[in-house]
Amino acid sequence: MPKAKQINSTKINSTENIFLGIDGGGTKCCALLVDANGAELGRGIGGSANAYQNLLQTQNSIITATHMALRAANLPDAALKNIVAGVGLAGVNVPSVFTAMNAWQHPFKTLHLSTDLHIACLGAHQSDGAVIVAGTGSCGYAFVNNQATIIGGHGFLLGDKGSAAWIGLAAVKAVLLAADNLASPTDLSELLSDYLQAKNIALVEKLSNASSADFAQLARFVFIAADKKDETATKILCEGADYLSALAELLWQTKPPRMAMLGGVAQAIQPWLTPNVLARLSAPLQQPEFGAVCFARQKESA
Amino acid sequence: MPKAKQINSTKINSTENIFLGIDGGGTKCCALLVDANGAELGRGIGGSANAYQNLLQTQNSIITATHMALRAANLPDAALKNIVAGVGLAGVNVPSVFTAMNAWQHPFKTLHLSTDLHIACLGAHQSDGAVIVAGTGSCGYAFVNNQATIIGGHGFLLGDKGSAAWIGLAAVKAVLLAADNLASPTDLSELLSDYLQAKNIALVEKLSNASSADFAQLARFVFIAADKKDETATKILCEGADYLSALAELLWQTKPPRMAMLGGVAQAIQPWLTPNVLARLSAPLQQPEFGAVCFARQKESA
Repeated sequence: MPKAKQINSTKINSTENIFLGIDGGGTKCCALLVDANGAELGRGIGGSANAYQNLLQTQNSIITATHMALRAANLPDAALKNIVAGVGLAGVNVPSVFTAMNAWQHPFKTLHLSTDLHIACLGAHQSDGAVIVAGTGSCGYAFVNNQATIIGGHGFLLGDKGSAAWIGLAAVKAVLLAADNLASPTDLSELLSDYLQAKNIALVEKLSNASSADFAQLARFVFIAADKKDETATKILCEGADYLSALAELLWQTKPPRMAMLGGVAQAIQPWLTPNVLARLSAPLQQPEFGAVCFARQKESA
Repeated sequence: MPKAKQINSTKINSTENIFLGIDGGGTKCCALLVDANGAELGRGIGGSANAYQNLLQTQNSIITATHMALRAANLPDAALKNIVAGVGLAGVNVPSVFTAMNAWQHPFKTLHLSTDLHIACLGAHQSDGAVIVAGTGSCGYAFVNNQATIIGGHGFLLGDKGSAAWIGLAAVKAVLLAADNLASPTDLSELLSDYLQAKNIALVEKLSNASSADFAQLARFVFIAADKKDETATKILCEGADYLSALAELLWQTKPPRMAMLGGVAQAIQPWLTPNVLARLSAPLQQPEFGAVCFARQKESA
């Protein structure tokens, strides 16, 4: 195998820069290799890369994803020395984590570090702009005239309103209140009990070790129930979307040229946003890993 | 030491019953020894005793608390064989946990097992009745004509509205929303940042490993702010108390002779309950460990 790779290797000049874009989050780490002209060479994927939760694992995930991308590009390991990496990671918004991650003795030529939010925003707009993230968690981010603004993103327990995990958690709470006759009956009771194979109080035991990602899986049932005019589901989506709309209005105050919505529930929640917010949303241009490449290029030319 | 104890030992007949009441919860395990006439012999305390979370630790905590109570009563270890134990534990409402706990090869003459809620209710009323628990968590319980009713008690993440932990969590959420300009300013911001030595977004990192007990510690600041007419604090307490009032109204439907409120925020939240609920509350007669003794006696005479 190594020999065959060597023979088929893409020819690169030993001093030529290759650009690597890394998008690292809690569940996975995506790597994209492009040449000096911006042409895609290969992609790779690695495990969890939340630098706040686990620094060493994050570094290992980046290496795994990069090696996979090198193999896909038919490039030898020696090409690591040509790599200018743009790395966007969850968790490096915490200053101590940024410092620790930046001290990494990485195998690349250069490594430029930023947050997952910043590279997602750069990917979506290729320049200044704002993003509302509504995935497992939720957050607002704008980058305008070298000034970053972060709103929300406080995590599953303390915030993340309008996110998939928040919507799923709200659904479980509503079902349990209804089971106790302390809230109106809702179609969510049957939808959740069918899916989780647990009813009423048994839901508590079933979900005792559930992660935010597990709760995020339940969000789709709230959209299904709201489509059928279920009052409880409608109320949950209105509350979540109102928060995201308020967050968008604050982001507009930073005067970004464009705003996009990203994440797993971005499409589904859009009809629930205020008309003013919805009308001004643009489609994201590129994925976050392209934003990471863009970030690396900006830093090299700075 | 063992010899001195032997010499000073309380005289008990080798066939005489001693009653042990155990009140086991997530933070501690309280033991109370009384003689056949109900006279208190001694008390002891052990560690965590949530049978759902850790069965072996629960059994160890019971043994530790019992040995301490025996020493306080000047009774030898041999007296374990005279003990009729009434044991009320958190977590044994889950059927599989009840079965596992009941299979314990305990050192007592007899062991009668029930939930922490049941013995708390028996302690409060010495007979049928209902309790609203508003401590770290919240729950409603009634025992009327051999029929138990449980409302709520779904835990920190999924419910426990009106509890100290829920009030504390709501305060943190409100402070973070205010910091993002997504909610009204509140006195809670200064109260929490003074206590936690962390402001706005730094609260998120500070509380990243906080337990429900840690959030419960923050509840008192909500009462302080509400006393000074802070709108956010007032809204939190109204929402929590409305839930507890609704829970009380449901419990009254089971026709309990008396209802009492127990737990760390029971006193402070009472002025926020509906007048109808408040007017019908009685003071608890005894602590839960007396309820556990009462339960053991009932079972022996059954």
